[in-house]
Amino acid sequence: MAETRQEPLFERVAIVGVGLIGSSIAHAVRRGGLAGRIVATDASPEVRARVAELGLADEIVETAAEAAEEADLVIVCTPIGASGAVAAEIGPNLKPGAILTDVGSVKGAVIREMGPHVPAHAHFVPAHPIAGTEHSGPDAGFAELFDGRWAIVVSESGTDAEAAAKVRALWEGMGAKVDTMTSEHHDLVFAIVSHVPHLIAYNIVGTAADLEDVTQSEVIKYSASGFRDFTRIAASDPTMWRDVFLNNRDAVLQMLGRFTEDLTALQRAIRWGEGDKLFELFTRTRAIRRGIIEQGQDTAAPDFGRRATPQTKS
Amino acid sequence: MAETRQEPLFERVAIVGVGLIGSSIAHAVRRGGLAGRIVATDASPEVRARVAELGLADEIVETAAEAAEEADLVIVCTPIGASGAVAAEIGPNLKPGAILTDVGSVKGAVIREMGPHVPAHAHFVPAHPIAGTEHSGPDAGFAELFDGRWAIVVSESGTDAEAAAKVRALWEGMGAKVDTMTSEHHDLVFAIVSHVPHLIAYNIVGTAADLEDVTQSEVIKYSASGFRDFTRIAASDPTMWRDVFLNNRDAVLQMLGRFTEDLTALQRAIRWGEGDKLFELFTRTRAIRRGIIEQGQDTAAPDFGRRATPQTKS
Repeated sequence: MAETRQEPLFERVAIVGVGLIGSSIAHAVRRGGLAGRIVATDASPEVRARVAELGLADEIVETAAEAAEEADLVIVCTPIGASGAVAAEIGPNLKPGAILTDVGSVKGAVIREMGPHVPAHAHFVPAHPIAGTEHSGPDAGFAELFDGRWAIVVSESGTDAEAAAKVRALWEGMGAKVDTMTSEHHDLVFAIVSHVPHLIAYNIVGTAADLEDVTQSEVIKYSASGFRDFTRIAASDPTMWRDVFLNNRDAVLQMLGRFTEDLTALQRAIRWGEGDKLFELFTRTRAIRRGIIEQGQDTAAPDFGRRATPQTKS
Repeated sequence: MAETRQEPLFERVAIVGVGLIGSSIAHAVRRGGLAGRIVATDASPEVRARVAELGLADEIVETAAEAAEEADLVIVCTPIGASGAVAAEIGPNLKPGAILTDVGSVKGAVIREMGPHVPAHAHFVPAHPIAGTEHSGPDAGFAELFDGRWAIVVSESGTDAEAAAKVRALWEGMGAKVDTMTSEHHDLVFAIVSHVPHLIAYNIVGTAADLEDVTQSEVIKYSASGFRDFTRIAASDPTMWRDVFLNNRDAVLQMLGRFTEDLTALQRAIRWGEGDKLFELFTRTRAIRRGIIEQGQDTAAPDFGRRATPQTKS
């Protein structure tokens, strides 16, 4: 299965937390021949058993501390809320020159939580792959998840250049394109392109579920008219997303304030019948979609290329 | 191309307005052998020329009045804002027993605008197919657009039963499943499953475009993290959507009020670190997604089945 390179980028790679991202990393590291040996762990015994059944790692251990022992690279793929505790457990076991990285969707909080536990003889290089699906768990992963996607490698004033270069090489080896930015800028960018969109998707699905005049079965039946795109996003992992909002609070509240301000203006335009204001916005937003398609970030196929003739069971 | 039936459902069918929906109807009516003859018109000379090039109709005429002459069924597929003027033009030309229908996303306003122009010897049966893509114009249509999708046929106290049955048969003949409801209920249901989702998608894409700290190119590059699903919706036809919001004002404002109320509660939960409230909502919304997939209204494939390995040009 693994196409082996001349020499793997890392001898011993530890994956801590084997959900969608952790399992996709296991697949992609193997595909790229990036590790001599993969050791994996997860807090859940059921997940560890499933990782063994799926053959995702060369070795499965019970604790993050054990996984980190002798590892050249430790990738923490737990929900962000667990990252501080995991780092506290791993820190004492990191060998000299070891690199610790993560995949969290928030970077400032992760640095605050994990950073203090990293010993001076090891390097911490936080990262964030811009890839995922609405599915969770070790069965959801696949080797191609990161192909052609962006991965952000965080660079702060104290970041070790050589360690950062190796983390960059890791992501490139898994098929991703890499960009570098500070944690502060990262958290602002992803508040608007990811966190607030998820929040409003969760929110409208909740609003629709709570109506008295429109039944839930009507919402489901007629979802093709726009709503169903939101339900896909609102089906994302609840633990992961709770932690994102709790840990990127300031940037999310800032962007949410802007969103609400703009929405209030639109609401006013509707109330007062100001069609030109609506038309102007609706024309402007089309250009952004064109940019996304031109840059290969999405398909131009209508409806994302969903089958034109869906099977219906009802 | 057309599988011909024993006898077409309508002898002469007029399509007024040949955009995405009008052209898809032309394809689907042909495929189903539902019309003896299709006559089409559009306010735009360019669109009429393109309809001729594409061979979408048996006859292309310059005005709606002409198209309606001798027609057994007239389907108005213009933006909602034009429906009153179109009805005023068509009304005098409707022959005894002729059926007038439409495809607008708002039904109360359409009935108010079009209804008064329908002569007593003809029948008005408003309808709304729950199908579409983010693409517009006569080239965007295809015969399968309505397959397995719902179409709503409006039934009010004065609706002629026989005419309503024929409009239902038309939509079933084009591959749709048909439901019947009042215009008032229709407008409430679609405010929440369609109109408000479109409005908030347009809104967040606009908010993102206006930021100072995050560049537009960053928004485009990193859109895979959630934002790009919104841009697809926000690329929908601006004229059509302006008219939807202006014409379904009350129901949209009502649903928007609920959405904002719920969003404010979420915002407060984030500010005060109430993780349990977030987790509870995020878990509840997953169940709605499951319902949509179980009822065949969307694919369960991750990321809507977008290719796992997109080509990238940048």
